[in-house]
Amino acid sequence: RIIECLNEILFIIYLQYVEFCFSYSHYLRFCSLRFCFQAVYFSSTFRVSASQEGYDEVQWNSSSESHPPWLRFHLGITRWELYPQHDPNMELLTQQIATQRIVSAVQKSGGTQLKLVMSFPNYGQALFKPMKQEREEETNYNLYYFSDFERHNAEIAAFHLDRILGYRRVPPAVGRLVDVVKEIKDITTDRKLAKTFFTSPVGNVCFYGQCSYYCSTEHAVCGRPLNLEASLAVMLPDLSLAPRRSWRSPWRRSYSRSKLAKWETEPNYCSTIKKTAPYNKGTRLVDFMDMVILDFLMSNMDRHHYETFEKFGNSTSLLHLDNGRAFGRHSKDEPSILVPLQQCCRIRRSTWLRLRLLSLPQYHISDVMRASLSTDALHKVAPLLTEPHLAALSRRLKTVLDTVSLCQKQQKEAGRESVFYDDLGSLEK
Amino acid sequence: RIIECLNEILFIIYLQYVEFCFSYSHYLRFCSLRFCFQAVYFSSTFRVSASQEGYDEVQWNSSSESHPPWLRFHLGITRWELYPQHDPNMELLTQQIATQRIVSAVQKSGGTQLKLVMSFPNYGQALFKPMKQEREEETNYNLYYFSDFERHNAEIAAFHLDRILGYRRVPPAVGRLVDVVKEIKDITTDRKLAKTFFTSPVGNVCFYGQCSYYCSTEHAVCGRPLNLEASLAVMLPDLSLAPRRSWRSPWRRSYSRSKLAKWETEPNYCSTIKKTAPYNKGTRLVDFMDMVILDFLMSNMDRHHYETFEKFGNSTSLLHLDNGRAFGRHSKDEPSILVPLQQCCRIRRSTWLRLRLLSLPQYHISDVMRASLSTDALHKVAPLLTEPHLAALSRRLKTVLDTVSLCQKQQKEAGRESVFYDDLGSLEK
Repeated sequence: RIIECLNEILFIIYLQYVEFCFSYSHYLRFCSLRFCFQAVYFSSTFRVSASQEGYDEVQWNSSSESHPPWLRFHLGITRWELYPQHDPNMELLTQQIATQRIVSAVQKSGGTQLKLVMSFPNYGQALFKPMKQEREEETNYNLYYFSDFERHNAEIAAFHLDRILGYRRVPPAVGRLVDVVKEIKDITTDRKLAKTFFTSPVGNVCFYGQCSYYCSTEHAVCGRPLNLEASLAVMLPDLSLAPRRSWRSPWRRSYSRSKLAKWETEPNYCSTIKKTAPYNKGTRLVDFMDMVILDFLMSNMDRHHYETFEKFGNSTSLLHLDNGRAFGRHSKDEPSILVPLQQCCRIRRSTWLRLRLLSLPQYHISDVMRASLSTDALHKVAPLLTEPHLAALSRRLKTVLDTVSLCQKQQKEAGRESVFYDDLGSLEK
Repeated sequence: RIIECLNEILFIIYLQYVEFCFSYSHYLRFCSLRFCFQAVYFSSTFRVSASQEGYDEVQWNSSSESHPPWLRFHLGITRWELYPQHDPNMELLTQQIATQRIVSAVQKSGGTQLKLVMSFPNYGQALFKPMKQEREEETNYNLYYFSDFERHNAEIAAFHLDRILGYRRVPPAVGRLVDVVKEIKDITTDRKLAKTFFTSPVGNVCFYGQCSYYCSTEHAVCGRPLNLEASLAVMLPDLSLAPRRSWRSPWRRSYSRSKLAKWETEPNYCSTIKKTAPYNKGTRLVDFMDMVILDFLMSNMDRHHYETFEKFGNSTSLLHLDNGRAFGRHSKDEPSILVPLQQCCRIRRSTWLRLRLLSLPQYHISDVMRASLSTDALHKVAPLLTEPHLAALSRRLKTVLDTVSLCQKQQKEAGRESVFYDDLGSLEK
């Protein structure tokens, strides 16, 4: 039995080695011994958990045909995008996390608000964020960005918007009605979580978990009476397998009610940043601007850090994780989010062309988003973004394009470098 | 100077003694030495504070003509009502707390939510509760009654409703737009309070104070940009002067998410209570029913205790204090609040007649409340109760009258005592 088991493990080590190295073969250093060694841990974990109740017997082999969608997603990650533009795997992946049986649900530590990690029979995992706010509610104007709720629909809408912008840097996120009793309370092994379940005065089942913000009885999340809207985002490869690096945003807010950040007082702030690594080389600065544009469109003020995969070094686009505080207010735009673009006057040409396309009547950003969001399972419960939020996208897109136009004018007059980072040079020739 | 001061104190001891004893002369035991002795403390306090900046020189003497409205109010309190039906003092009193300069504002300890005690130049004091919820917001249905916000407009509306019902057992409460900087932050001597002021992202000045519920940055109360709606309720005589007794309500809720109270499971609960002091004698039971009817009409589930003035013993009506959790939901009635009436089938005849009057088209409760509330200073900012809340009053009044009718039928069939406690016997003859 032990020998059989060891054999299986060895096979999987080999299998994972082949798979990962194949997938990333054009980045040789990714295929370091250390990385593939970690695959052992990864695989052996699977063999152990395979004996647990509720999980499927692992059936996949070295043929990618046999891989579950989440593994195909992990293996398909490149330094420039999390998934390809036309990915046949995407539909099955999102469908599975929206419908597969939930085998396990435990709280995820870290972060300030309640979230759960849910596991599926095929070992796929998703990050669960519960609905906390009605669609038509706007974030209280007196709340600071660091006190805002996380919104499940913002996580889903951010995935769609990021894809529409052509970035593909947000992990796939879908909506799902979760039965808080059968799919969380009854199956969780997390006692601290289980202890916080209660029945509300109107007979809804609620829970609040343990976390640093809003984890109290007054802020409980509740089923109606059992069904709770939530976002489920596909988990990225485990950190032990694919470590990530966290970068402090140069345009980070002060996270204080009284202090101003440096960029808020120094108009020439960007000229310093442009000379500072890693923004002084490669695509990092325009990658950052891509993220700034996404954040301005969805009014996300909470991008204090961003992440990259360590193995890809500095030649990689940024991961757009954690978008729950976006889409809080539709009636107000937040010009300060766009400050990096205004100060640096630098944008990828491909991004600019995409934005112009999305401002045309036939590809109007609000319409494209509406259509894209309507494919989500929660759409039939209620549209994921209200019409005022969709209208805000179009208004904000105009502001981004106007900012670029102003940059062009300024740079031309000053005889400075072009606003555009030419990533389409070969196509134009 | 000391002798002069002592003389003044002695004069005021005498004055207070005469005043209080005169006012309550028909209840001799009220005029105990102890009570009047406490007046010394009361008066000497005044003489000391008179030297403080911002307060008027005390000008009043033994003639009630010279008394400020708040003192007339205190002296006019009887065991059956806090103020007379036709009280020429009431208009001046409410007008003063709505407009007089605020000399001091400090947090009031006790209770679970933020409240302040505000003082005026003539030594009057009022209890300040800030606006926390928009008028059109309904309390979250999943919140337990003990987690609900306190509402400033509920305090004001409760005063009006209680007066309309002919009880006069809620201390006068008015609305006021308070400048949170000039009228709180700049003048407070309460450092713990002052420390919690900040400017919100949209430039409103906010504060949250220190208390056990909702005193945190996420639940701050904010001016627009400086003006904050609030309720100001006239303070009752100091507890050292007129001590009060707190009574646990026999129909108190369990204040637990899982436990039921005894009255919820025992249909004959009232027959026990009717035999138990003080409900077995005098008017206590029908006084309690008066309060139950008020609470059902305004949907206040939070009446765990009620108070009486100790000096009046058991022959006194109840004080209807602390109504901030009323008027939380208009679209739902809470039948459990009416359970005491259903179980005891006992009501004052005068109360019943008043309720019938308020159900007639020409004295319709919703119309009378709308008219009464429109006299408040905050009415011009926004009506204190929205139309759905006014409509709910009428719907709930019908439920109360139906309950009494059902009681009449049941008692008649069973040959039991009349539903009515006849407090109008002499009038009918």
